[in-house]
Amino acid sequence: MKITVLQNIMNANDQLAERNLAILNRNGVLAVNVMSSPGAGKTTLILETIRRLRNRVRIGVIEADVASTIDADKIALESVPVVQINTGGQCHIDANMVSNALERIPLKDIQLLLIENVGNLICPADFKIGVQKNIMLLSVPEGDDKPFKYPLMFTTVDAVIVSKIDYLPLSDFNLDQFRQTVEGMNRKARIFSLSARTGEGFEAWVSWLESVLKDFSGGKGSGGDQRKTD
Amino acid sequence: MKITVLQNIMNANDQLAERNLAILNRNGVLAVNVMSSPGAGKTTLILETIRRLRNRVRIGVIEADVASTIDADKIALESVPVVQINTGGQCHIDANMVSNALERIPLKDIQLLLIENVGNLICPADFKIGVQKNIMLLSVPEGDDKPFKYPLMFTTVDAVIVSKIDYLPLSDFNLDQFRQTVEGMNRKARIFSLSARTGEGFEAWVSWLESVLKDFSGGKGSGGDQRKTD
Repeated sequence: MKITVLQNIMNANDQLAERNLAILNRNGVLAVNVMSSPGAGKTTLILETIRRLRNRVRIGVIEADVASTIDADKIALESVPVVQINTGGQCHIDANMVSNALERIPLKDIQLLLIENVGNLICPADFKIGVQKNIMLLSVPEGDDKPFKYPLMFTTVDAVIVSKIDYLPLSDFNLDQFRQTVEGMNRKARIFSLSARTGEGFEAWVSWLESVLKDFSGGKGSGGDQRKTD
Repeated sequence: MKITVLQNIMNANDQLAERNLAILNRNGVLAVNVMSSPGAGKTTLILETIRRLRNRVRIGVIEADVASTIDADKIALESVPVVQINTGGQCHIDANMVSNALERIPLKDIQLLLIENVGNLICPADFKIGVQKNIMLLSVPEGDDKPFKYPLMFTTVDAVIVSKIDYLPLSDFNLDQFRQTVEGMNRKARIFSLSARTGEGFEAWVSWLESVLKDFSGGKGSGGDQRKTD
C-alpha cells in the first residue's frame, strides 16, 4: 500500500496567510499591514493616505481592535469600504480573521487594501496575515530607543514611518540616530518621517506607496510576506 | 482505597502569583506592577518616583522588556537594586519570571518594589504576577480613546496615570472626558495626570503611593491582586 507522506506542512495560520495572499494577488489587490503601538497614528495615517490617493487609487480598509468600532466609524466617513475586526482580547490579528474580513470587502472594486493591526509592537510581528507589504509606525513621543526593545517588529517590516514629527521640538528623539539604528537592523526597510497635523513628509510616503502599487500592478513585487513565523 | 480529589486547582501562573504575593507580604514589601504602551513613560515615572521618595522609602526595581537592558541601566544609575527580565519575545511578564527576579532582589532591604512590565496595553492585563497594586500609564499623545479599545487594562488597575500632560497644548486629548470614561469603567481606580518634564502633578501621585505604603505597613491593604485571570 502506498503511504502518503505530507511534508513541510505549514501551521494553520501560515497556510491561511498564503491563501489570503493568493486571493489578493488574483484580484490584483495590494494589501499593506499597518502596525504600531497604541496611539502612534495608524488610523490617522490611513485617513490621510485615503484623502491624498482617493482620486487615483481605489482603496479598502480593514480595521482591527481588541474592542470598539471607533476607527472603522472614522474610515466609513470617507466613503471607502471598511470592515472592523474585534479580536476580543487577542493582541494581534491572524490570517483567519483577515480571511473572514476579505469575504466582506469588495476586492474586485479596489486596488489597495490598508489593514490596521491591533495597537501592539510585539505580537503582530509574529503572525503572518497574508499581505504583500508590512509597515510600522513609531511616533516621536514613544522615544527613539524602541528598535532595541522590540527588535522583531523593526527587522521584519518593509517600511518604518516616524509619525508625529511635529512633537520633535518637545522631545529628545534623535531622528538621525534612529535612522542609523533601523538601517543597521533592517537594510530593506524604507524610512519615512511625517506629521499628519502639518502634512510634512506625507508626500514622500504617499509617493512610495504609489510606486509600490505601480510595481505590483505591473506584475512585479507580488512575492508576498517574506517574514518568518516561528 | 481513598481517592485524593484535588479541587479548585489554579493554573500554574496564578499559583505562582499567589506564592510571589505571600513572599512579598512576608517581607513587608509593597509591589506595584506598572503597565502601559511602549514609550508612555514607565521608566521615567519610576526614575522620578525614586528621586522623590529615596530619602523616605527604600525602593527596588524589576525591569522587563522583550530585549535589551536599556531601562535597567538607567535605574542602576540611581543606586537602587534592579533586576532586568528579558522576555525573549513574550508580550508580558508572568508570575514565574517575577518569581525568579524576586530571588535576586534583596527583599529584606526594601519596602517598595516597582515592577515595570513589557510595553503593551493588552497582554499584561491578562496575567497576574503576584503584586499588591496594579497601575497603568496612558500618555497624552496616545489619545483619549484608548479605554474603549483596551478595556481590560483600564477596568482592572488600581490607578490610571495620564502622563506627558506637557503635550496637552499640542493635542486634542480631553482630560475631563477621559476621567469620566475611566470613572465609568472602573470606580476604584485613582486617576492622576502629570508630566515628568515639568514636574506638574507628580506630588499627588507620590503622596498617594506613600499613603498606600503606609496602609500596607500598618497591616491594611495587603489583600493582593484581585484581578481575574481567565
